[in-house]
Amino acid sequence: MMGPEEPEKPSIPIRGWLWFRDIPSKLLAKLHEVARQAIKVAKDDPRRLIHSLKVGLTVTLVSLLYYLRPLYNNFGASAMWAVMTVVVVFEFSVGGTIGKCLNRGLATLAAAALAIGAHHLAILIGKKCEPYLIGVFVFIQAVAMTFVRFFPKVKAKYDYGMLIFVMTFSLVSISGLRMNEVLELAQARLVTILIGASTCLAVCILICPVWAGEDLHRYVAQNISQLGNFLEGHTDQCFKTSCDAWIEITKPSVVNLNSILVDSKGREETLANLAGWEPGHGQFMYRHPWKQYLKIGNLTRQCACRLEAINGCFNSNFQAPPEIQCTIEVAFSESGKALKELAWAVETMTKPSSANPHIANLKIASRNLKSILKSGVWGEGSDILQIIPVAAAMIDTVSSVEQICVAVNELSFMAKFKSRNGSGVEGESEIGHDKSCIEIGMAEIPSLSVAIDGGIEISAEAEEQILMV
Amino acid sequence: MMGPEEPEKPSIPIRGWLWFRDIPSKLLAKLHEVARQAIKVAKDDPRRLIHSLKVGLTVTLVSLLYYLRPLYNNFGASAMWAVMTVVVVFEFSVGGTIGKCLNRGLATLAAAALAIGAHHLAILIGKKCEPYLIGVFVFIQAVAMTFVRFFPKVKAKYDYGMLIFVMTFSLVSISGLRMNEVLELAQARLVTILIGASTCLAVCILICPVWAGEDLHRYVAQNISQLGNFLEGHTDQCFKTSCDAWIEITKPSVVNLNSILVDSKGREETLANLAGWEPGHGQFMYRHPWKQYLKIGNLTRQCACRLEAINGCFNSNFQAPPEIQCTIEVAFSESGKALKELAWAVETMTKPSSANPHIANLKIASRNLKSILKSGVWGEGSDILQIIPVAAAMIDTVSSVEQICVAVNELSFMAKFKSRNGSGVEGESEIGHDKSCIEIGMAEIPSLSVAIDGGIEISAEAEEQILMV
Repeated sequence: MMGPEEPEKPSIPIRGWLWFRDIPSKLLAKLHEVARQAIKVAKDDPRRLIHSLKVGLTVTLVSLLYYLRPLYNNFGASAMWAVMTVVVVFEFSVGGTIGKCLNRGLATLAAAALAIGAHHLAILIGKKCEPYLIGVFVFIQAVAMTFVRFFPKVKAKYDYGMLIFVMTFSLVSISGLRMNEVLELAQARLVTILIGASTCLAVCILICPVWAGEDLHRYVAQNISQLGNFLEGHTDQCFKTSCDAWIEITKPSVVNLNSILVDSKGREETLANLAGWEPGHGQFMYRHPWKQYLKIGNLTRQCACRLEAINGCFNSNFQAPPEIQCTIEVAFSESGKALKELAWAVETMTKPSSANPHIANLKIASRNLKSILKSGVWGEGSDILQIIPVAAAMIDTVSSVEQICVAVNELSFMAKFKSRNGSGVEGESEIGHDKSCIEIGMAEIPSLSVAIDGGIEISAEAEEQILMV
Repeated sequence: MMGPEEPEKPSIPIRGWLWFRDIPSKLLAKLHEVARQAIKVAKDDPRRLIHSLKVGLTVTLVSLLYYLRPLYNNFGASAMWAVMTVVVVFEFSVGGTIGKCLNRGLATLAAAALAIGAHHLAILIGKKCEPYLIGVFVFIQAVAMTFVRFFPKVKAKYDYGMLIFVMTFSLVSISGLRMNEVLELAQARLVTILIGASTCLAVCILICPVWAGEDLHRYVAQNISQLGNFLEGHTDQCFKTSCDAWIEITKPSVVNLNSILVDSKGREETLANLAGWEPGHGQFMYRHPWKQYLKIGNLTRQCACRLEAINGCFNSNFQAPPEIQCTIEVAFSESGKALKELAWAVETMTKPSSANPHIANLKIASRNLKSILKSGVWGEGSDILQIIPVAAAMIDTVSSVEQICVAVNELSFMAKFKSRNGSGVEGESEIGHDKSCIEIGMAEIPSLSVAIDGGIEISAEAEEQILMV
């Protein structure tokens, strides 16, 4: 079956030699690959490189304890606990480092105190049954603490503390040393651990700090903004020509909806947990409403799921009559704008009043769309099988955008976002800069264009009119 | 402004007393809450309780080192490393424990060897610049290893090893002891760490082992099965009456699609990473294709996203003409059955041939649906705005189910799933047990009912016929 051009297989010793000969080039290729990946990792987030340098600096600083004789004479071998503490406790974000420091410190103190108590109790009861009693204590606390680690709340914030508790309790209670030795040792260790932890905290907070809260804040804003980009990408690519003609809609550039949909939840929850440890910093107070970001994140994911559906519908080209086309276009571009305004408001911590006119337009466009669809005027040659799914997904998306707007408004209230331009006037009219784009979609309800200018608080009259459409 | 019934506020000392009086009841309530949560955690997965007992047992066993005098005299204070190892290394799953043991062991050995080398080098170059050189070495390795931890592959499997490397290298290279002392200490520590790790592994594997691979296997099968349940729930609740009448469709019981959509990815990836450490066990070989489960998981999430869209469409009641109703019903129930057969095949590791007839029916139902929709026969009074989105989402779902089927077939090939009943005959006809339900949907293409019986490999002729529909 072999073709005549098939080269002959070399004999085993030659193959062995070839394998050896290729080692350097393979190694070079591997090194090249690692270097390429390292550059990518550093480019994706340059703070990673800074973090590595910070860890190196702290470990080296703490190692000085060994070289400065006066310090070494004080602590002796206990100085190694300082190095261990630094390596174990230093995390990427300030919140992570503080959380681990507190967990480690408090758990060590609590476990040591309890273990000394248990030791005393065992001695009181009798020298003979002391080992058994201590064995029982160790068993019970190990079982209890390991089990407690499965509680969701404990797992999220105190997992490391529980681990340290079990370790410290076991070590102290079974060490079997005389009390004064234990206390002496404990004191030396505590001081070195404190030195390690405080060096860690100082370097972590003072040199280019990475705040988990700030990351969460930016990440949530960025996800909303990505959805906005996705919608604007659709608008730009799908509705290039005028609304008067039949327009062909092609698949737009794909923003990575999937990563928002699938990866964001875990990341947001981790960041929110870490942010809970952080003191006030920059624009954030100590008790910033981090939980509200999780709520906004959930709504963003819901919206992304709906946009996925739209994305699916756009897989094939489609044609729609002008009025539907235009209303969908308005809904698209206004959703995009509203989301980007909301993202901007979160990002800059200003009141999201600038999104209100877009939201009002959105509501109207959504109702227009429903009424056009219900009227059943399809025009000839239009493919309702492709129009209706897009329209239905669009209506869902609009309600999703509205929910995000409500959640961002809640956040702006909780976190006392500043008014735009510091004027303090809420609901101010920000319309005018891109009013033209919505006029086409609202041609049927000219009486409403006044209501929109008033922001999201539409008058009862106008509301009635809208509902009647 | 206060109402007349408003009770007077008690004075401060009385309030203080009330606060004190409430402490016991508050404490009781808190205890009750904790107990309730503990029972829930244990009920959700009883293996958690067993794991806690296993950890307690192992810690107590290792503590014996302190009490057995001959052992203690050998190791002295180094025995504490055994306890530390157990506490840090013992994980819930066998894969986690093995992974941590290997990471800890190999990283310690490598780092210690390198550190001793660095120490020698520093001494060779000169006594005077020794501390500076060692400082430089410590700095460089800490920076490099901390940076390497950000590589995605390293983070997934070797994160803990890198941490231990930095710690061991720093401790050994700066300890400044004479060489023979270091070696003696290192030997004692290594032996105790080995004792700790091997006790851990023995208890972890021999007493009720929790295999991450098995968990992943079950979890993926269970998610597919949940989607099947969701679809069947729809079928049961929406299509109770006969297909001849107008039928009202109400919102079915909600299976938690959101948890599949959002939570499953992280869990699957963690389990797949842990499973990679595990030796062969039960039905799983050493190199079981765990990555394929991740692929199936991704497709399952995609399908869940599409079902979310259907779920949204069913929010309001809707009416459809009988032929559409029936075709959708067929697509629903066959999708549900296909998914449940696939889940069953994964769960029991048998070839998924029993799903093939359902997949064939699905394809036909999907094509029928498309042709009915294209024909534009809506009947009077039917609300196409509600029918079409459901139909469109259904067509998407069908293609998603087909993709899952392909992925499961790949898995069955890679993992050498056994044939059903051990007969070894592939593609055997499994039809007949619920053929009746699909007959309605296929009324228009009777010539195809033969082709379906042949399983998923439909003959070219039949394929042509289908394509023409």
